[in-house]
Amino acid sequence: MPGVPELTLFEFDLVYNFFSFTFASMFAAFIFFVLSRPQVAPQYRSALTMSALVVAVAGYHYFRIFESWGASYVLNEAGDAYIFSGALFNDAYRYIDWLLTVPLLVAELIYVINPKNKGRLTFSLATAAALMVILGYPGEISADMGTRAVWGFLSTIPFIYIVWQLFTGLGDAMQEQGEEVSVLIRNTRLLLFATWGFYPIVYMLPFLGGMTAGALVAVQVGYCIADVAAKAGYGVMIYAIAAKKSEAAGYDIATMSQPQSVAAPAGD
Amino acid sequence: MPGVPELTLFEFDLVYNFFSFTFASMFAAFIFFVLSRPQVAPQYRSALTMSALVVAVAGYHYFRIFESWGASYVLNEAGDAYIFSGALFNDAYRYIDWLLTVPLLVAELIYVINPKNKGRLTFSLATAAALMVILGYPGEISADMGTRAVWGFLSTIPFIYIVWQLFTGLGDAMQEQGEEVSVLIRNTRLLLFATWGFYPIVYMLPFLGGMTAGALVAVQVGYCIADVAAKAGYGVMIYAIAAKKSEAAGYDIATMSQPQSVAAPAGD
Repeated sequence: MPGVPELTLFEFDLVYNFFSFTFASMFAAFIFFVLSRPQVAPQYRSALTMSALVVAVAGYHYFRIFESWGASYVLNEAGDAYIFSGALFNDAYRYIDWLLTVPLLVAELIYVINPKNKGRLTFSLATAAALMVILGYPGEISADMGTRAVWGFLSTIPFIYIVWQLFTGLGDAMQEQGEEVSVLIRNTRLLLFATWGFYPIVYMLPFLGGMTAGALVAVQVGYCIADVAAKAGYGVMIYAIAAKKSEAAGYDIATMSQPQSVAAPAGD
Repeated sequence: MPGVPELTLFEFDLVYNFFSFTFASMFAAFIFFVLSRPQVAPQYRSALTMSALVVAVAGYHYFRIFESWGASYVLNEAGDAYIFSGALFNDAYRYIDWLLTVPLLVAELIYVINPKNKGRLTFSLATAAALMVILGYPGEISADMGTRAVWGFLSTIPFIYIVWQLFTGLGDAMQEQGEEVSVLIRNTRLLLFATWGFYPIVYMLPFLGGMTAGALVAVQVGYCIADVAAKAGYGVMIYAIAAKKSEAAGYDIATMSQPQSVAAPAGD
């Protein structure tokens, strides 16, 4: 079938094992976030709940992606290459995953920073995040590089809006954080930009010479690395911020309580 | 086989991916309701338990529906269309799901509002909800449009009874809620009517020209969207009401306690 390149044993296995690695990472991260949730003060638990949801949803999709990958190739008769089996690899799983998880990733950061206008900020940034994913999809499934470029460009507009909002809209709330917490939040925001910036690069890889075997493998491995860093790694940093802020608020994990005067419900 | 239309690759994949998306949404919502349950005061936890049950049952059924859909079609020899495989798609999963979940959805709202007569109200409305689902089923599985219309009409009678009861029977209890909570409850009741009103529209789609490929796809996608909104989305709103009412009752999530005088067990 045109559009599905033949893969060497090494190429097929590399992707296969990366999918398994990513599933295991998401699954482990889910257990970590659920178990660590009571360690932080109640006002930061929503952020950890969202981290847990993100990696649970991603874990489900990587399980499906893994199965779909395995079903879409068979060994050829000579046993020296993988050829298309007749069952198309389902790329849509990634986009459904991002549609559900990317808005939650933005919300995680907002909820752990806990600014006064967090409801409104979350709504506008989560909507932009969903739009970014939806606009990227028509380009991803197109074999035509022009179509890929147009949708890729459109998808960049909400992305820039999010970057801009995370720098300006969170500015005031950032001033109110302690020194150590500020550094952690800055690093987390950088991780978000670095990992999110990785996706468009992967998206553009087929421009280097069409959807060859090399491009196909690089896209799948690239998305795996980006997903582990942007979901599990990022979630661990959100946890570190929540733990540090809980400590600063006088939260005592032994009694699961904190001084009443410090534990203001909103705006920290 | 007559009655099972041929689908394009796009049509088959669209339904397939919507089923997967809906399963992931229910699964994530289940984790959310379970983790968020201790965040609300004890008198509202029953409502969150019901939300968790609803999405757990729906998640199970969407898993089955997804599998059934995948098994009911195969690629034709040319590889350009999906044809009936010989294994009938099982539509009954949806109705079994609704039979279990729809009474719980009504009960969720009653329990979060917490009126004095909630036991009696839940019993009568849950019975009407079950009746509504049972009466719809013979029409759904019939290829005859007259039969579909008759059962669809009968199913509307308990639906109207529920709408009427939710407006009149809850009227007194609504007066006792605070301003902010009242707005949330009104919005949730509207979401319930809007999403429930969507089901009869989807049910009626085959009237536009029989069970064509287009109608089949629209019915499945339509039910997915309605289910996500009516179960996961609605559950999140029930959670928001419970959280707001817990705060108003002086519930402190840090110590998981509230002042004795405010924590009246019934009628809030």
